[in-house]
Amino acid sequence: MLNGHGGNVKQLCEKYGLNLDEIIDFSASINPLGCPAYIRNAVAEQFNDIQHYPDSQCTDLRKAIAEKTPCNESNVIIGNGSNELFYLIPRALQPKKGVLLQPTFAEFSDAFRNSNVEVIEIINNDKIFPVINTNLSRLKSINECMIFLCNPNNPTGQLTRREDIIDLVKDNPKRLIVIDEAFMDFVEDDEKYSVIKDAPNMDNLIVVRSLTKFYGFPGLRLGYLVSNDSIVDKLMQYKEPWTVNTIAQVAGMAAINDEEFAANTREYVSVEKSFLYECLTKINGIQPFQPTVNFILVRIEDKGVPLSEIQNHLLKNNILIRNCSNFVGLDKNYFRVAVKTREENLKLLNALKLIMGDVTSNETVRKDHIPEFVAGEL
Amino acid sequence: MLNGHGGNVKQLCEKYGLNLDEIIDFSASINPLGCPAYIRNAVAEQFNDIQHYPDSQCTDLRKAIAEKTPCNESNVIIGNGSNELFYLIPRALQPKKGVLLQPTFAEFSDAFRNSNVEVIEIINNDKIFPVINTNLSRLKSINECMIFLCNPNNPTGQLTRREDIIDLVKDNPKRLIVIDEAFMDFVEDDEKYSVIKDAPNMDNLIVVRSLTKFYGFPGLRLGYLVSNDSIVDKLMQYKEPWTVNTIAQVAGMAAINDEEFAANTREYVSVEKSFLYECLTKINGIQPFQPTVNFILVRIEDKGVPLSEIQNHLLKNNILIRNCSNFVGLDKNYFRVAVKTREENLKLLNALKLIMGDVTSNETVRKDHIPEFVAGEL
Repeated sequence: MLNGHGGNVKQLCEKYGLNLDEIIDFSASINPLGCPAYIRNAVAEQFNDIQHYPDSQCTDLRKAIAEKTPCNESNVIIGNGSNELFYLIPRALQPKKGVLLQPTFAEFSDAFRNSNVEVIEIINNDKIFPVINTNLSRLKSINECMIFLCNPNNPTGQLTRREDIIDLVKDNPKRLIVIDEAFMDFVEDDEKYSVIKDAPNMDNLIVVRSLTKFYGFPGLRLGYLVSNDSIVDKLMQYKEPWTVNTIAQVAGMAAINDEEFAANTREYVSVEKSFLYECLTKINGIQPFQPTVNFILVRIEDKGVPLSEIQNHLLKNNILIRNCSNFVGLDKNYFRVAVKTREENLKLLNALKLIMGDVTSNETVRKDHIPEFVAGEL
Repeated sequence: MLNGHGGNVKQLCEKYGLNLDEIIDFSASINPLGCPAYIRNAVAEQFNDIQHYPDSQCTDLRKAIAEKTPCNESNVIIGNGSNELFYLIPRALQPKKGVLLQPTFAEFSDAFRNSNVEVIEIINNDKIFPVINTNLSRLKSINECMIFLCNPNNPTGQLTRREDIIDLVKDNPKRLIVIDEAFMDFVEDDEKYSVIKDAPNMDNLIVVRSLTKFYGFPGLRLGYLVSNDSIVDKLMQYKEPWTVNTIAQVAGMAAINDEEFAANTREYVSVEKSFLYECLTKINGIQPFQPTVNFILVRIEDKGVPLSEIQNHLLKNNILIRNCSNFVGLDKNYFRVAVKTREENLKLLNALKLIMGDVTSNETVRKDHIPEFVAGEL
């Protein structure tokens, strides 16, 4: 129970008789600042557009993303969430093999299997997770394949440096590299890691990004990819029309160039992820992995409180976390939490402390216990 | 120019420097009564739900559709428009051959080709369009195939009787029949034609429906299919998650049980399609096909005004029609118009009369010329 993907809040509430409005959802890694208010206004203003078919070319959004990246419009495809694009890529390009460094986002292997592509999974062990530079010779030994890499990686948070990716990309043009940069907008020094500007000019690189995690509207589904003209042409031959609905396009246009919201988000997440991480390190029986963005992978120590007990206890406190036991390379000792607002993070920490048994039920983490807090609270 | 699919209004407006608000779009066959006002209210009320992932199971909508059909929830899949389902079906079920009676909705052949399924097209000639009962022996001779049939057929309007479909379905369980009932909600005596109630209980029948044409929100994308449990299970193995966004689900739930709107729509379309058809028959140089629902196929007579001239003339009057030359089995002498409001239909008729040359520029069709008009105008 309670595993599968994160974010399936409504179904869980119905299943367990919970009130959706009271749930604090740490299972989906969405911007803690929430969806900017002007998104609602933009949607209300253009709501009458729903009487027409959506623009299947997503003309405005492609232009805006091309300007922002920067690249040409012909390098951009908009998707019904980045997920549509993960499925489209192997379907259109039919690689001989699909390669994954596990654990990583579960949809990659589903996307390969959906196109009947054989999947090779590289797994180190359950405490050291594989990255490109420790697996370079092995990766370079697999020719004519498609490698999906999540950067920063969901659920481990690991960042891969741009130069390591480019090294692999340049090694063999028949090896197609797909980088999922779904959380890259949350990274402060993203120039060190992102290859989105390289993608239009390389023979064999596709970068996929999500707009909904950062702008707080996962319910609307919106993502995009950037690659060279030839790859984009091949993908468009298999792209289904009208997949991105009008409201998602309107929301994307309203959000895409809001640099102030972007800067505020990075600052807030930077402070809050350190706060949540530091507090988690002090809780008995669990080991959080150093976060890079707005989620933290946590390992339950051997012979610790079982994950099912932790989940059930948290659920009684209206808190949802992501059971990571269905990630390849992880097991029932791992869970993931989003970095949320200070108030919400404190609720998680207090509830966790109770179940992990290192404070009495009357003691709780208080705000003044945390010396590193800098930014304002929501 | 100006062919491809109907409904790509925004792109056309940008291309030709037209004002979207002034365009009367006869190229997409959407309910002339428009989207009910309460859809906007429902979306506004539940807008905050966009901060969560959509319910990938579309639980509420599946329940509502199961109750309405009636069938079990396990017989229903919701799609990001019916189009997602057209592509999903051959992808998941991998038929040896795909069969189409042409002309029909162009996405069917694209969906087959997207899954590398060989397509067999049955074409009679350009004035008599193929239907099941005139092609029964030929259809029955093709085994282990998947037949897509649109009922009523887009763009010809032909209706196929339920008993003819069931006869073909029962003939061979290895021949899978997919019926697109996208416009069936507009049909008054739909029990004679629809097989949606049969689908859960047959071995080899899938019925796909659209919610957006009838409820006037094609920009939101929403469709569904009904079939037996075994077929639904197979399809779900290939279904991508979270394809139907939250706003589309909310709109669907608000609309699905509005029987008053449904009855008003059928009554309005019934009157207005007869009115538009009768008036079109009186215009020189064109022959409309008897309509069954909210669109009319029109043939330009031999040596008549070229379609490109008609389109350009109408465009100057802010009127878009559907150039049907890219339908297999049709040519540059066919166009399709939606049945819209009386006021809009009159604008089309007057503009058509001018270009077809049977009235002077000062004469126009006037409302009091039309004896058959019954229902109130919008």
